[in-house]
Amino acid sequence: MKSYPPTLRRCLEELQKLPGIGPKSAQRILFSLLDRGPAAAEVLSEAFRTVAASVVPCPTCRAYMEAGEPCGLCSDPSRDGRLLCIVETAADVLLIESTGEFKGLYHVLHGLLSPLKGLRPEQLGLEVLDRRLDGASVEEVVLATPPTAEGEATASYLAAHLAGRVPQITRIAYGLPVGTDFQYVDAQTLARALSGRKAFT
Amino acid sequence: MKSYPPTLRRCLEELQKLPGIGPKSAQRILFSLLDRGPAAAEVLSEAFRTVAASVVPCPTCRAYMEAGEPCGLCSDPSRDGRLLCIVETAADVLLIESTGEFKGLYHVLHGLLSPLKGLRPEQLGLEVLDRRLDGASVEEVVLATPPTAEGEATASYLAAHLAGRVPQITRIAYGLPVGTDFQYVDAQTLARALSGRKAFT
Repeated sequence: MKSYPPTLRRCLEELQKLPGIGPKSAQRILFSLLDRGPAAAEVLSEAFRTVAASVVPCPTCRAYMEAGEPCGLCSDPSRDGRLLCIVETAADVLLIESTGEFKGLYHVLHGLLSPLKGLRPEQLGLEVLDRRLDGASVEEVVLATPPTAEGEATASYLAAHLAGRVPQITRIAYGLPVGTDFQYVDAQTLARALSGRKAFT
Repeated sequence: MKSYPPTLRRCLEELQKLPGIGPKSAQRILFSLLDRGPAAAEVLSEAFRTVAASVVPCPTCRAYMEAGEPCGLCSDPSRDGRLLCIVETAADVLLIESTGEFKGLYHVLHGLLSPLKGLRPEQLGLEVLDRRLDGASVEEVVLATPPTAEGEATASYLAAHLAGRVPQITRIAYGLPVGTDFQYVDAQTLARALSGRKAFT
């Protein structure tokens, strides 16, 4: 092996398309697989093939679900249909679920408005959202896009888009992250934490 | 998606078996694939399937090669068959090749002697190495296992195993890594760099 055989080179290229995987880690991953024998690569291949074949976005909330089965969230009668949380990614749904703080339903944008990346409102699934708001009695939409320039712009756009169609539109709170040292908090966050102060209970 | 559908969970488990991939990066990788659509996971699956089906260790040097094709190194007539470098992994072969400093052939151990991990001499392909030394006129074996306890132990074992069968057995040099600040070099490395000093040319 003077250089990579073409098969390995192709696999390395595919691995490097994944987030956080550079040339070095792609190489480590591939060689560890080879060292474990052909069965290991076969098992991984099969896992990805199954995902490609059987995981689809839910037609209602756009989070991921197994094809042919009901969406675990949308079909759950214990969830509060009056509350709808809008998030950027399907991973955000899992993150919010892990807090146990939210009992409503979700809408996944699969992106944020970004003129640079060419992401426009049509790509955020707003027609699905609109149909859903028409059919259900949603009382509050929580805009839970990230506190970044694009996240803010998207939240503003959504707030304008939804104005008058939902009784209440809210934005997740800004403030100090729990457990941070004061010295490490940037001035903007601190300013938001101050202006958003609440009565001490 | 209240929690992971079983298909995603299985794929996450498989991803976490890879080196350097924890729960968070497995999740990032999987969601980025899903966000790119089923074709992306299918392409990756196919890349791994092809690797599993068509990459095998060379029966001579044990580095990886495409099945059914000659090993790029062992079959290269320009390589110097009198020099044989013994390395731990197939990745090490690529690393040494990238230096352009070595023109001989290789033997890949696929591991180091380790009583803890249960790796014994039989698993290092020594019978392949022995047959090879019997058949060819190797004049020097370079022991290029890493400068760790296990690498040293393996080099010592190999030196004893090969004694009397090869005219020359050498060990790659220890010393200061190029470009390091003196302050960051440990005492053991410095001691080796001093004892291994060479005439200034």
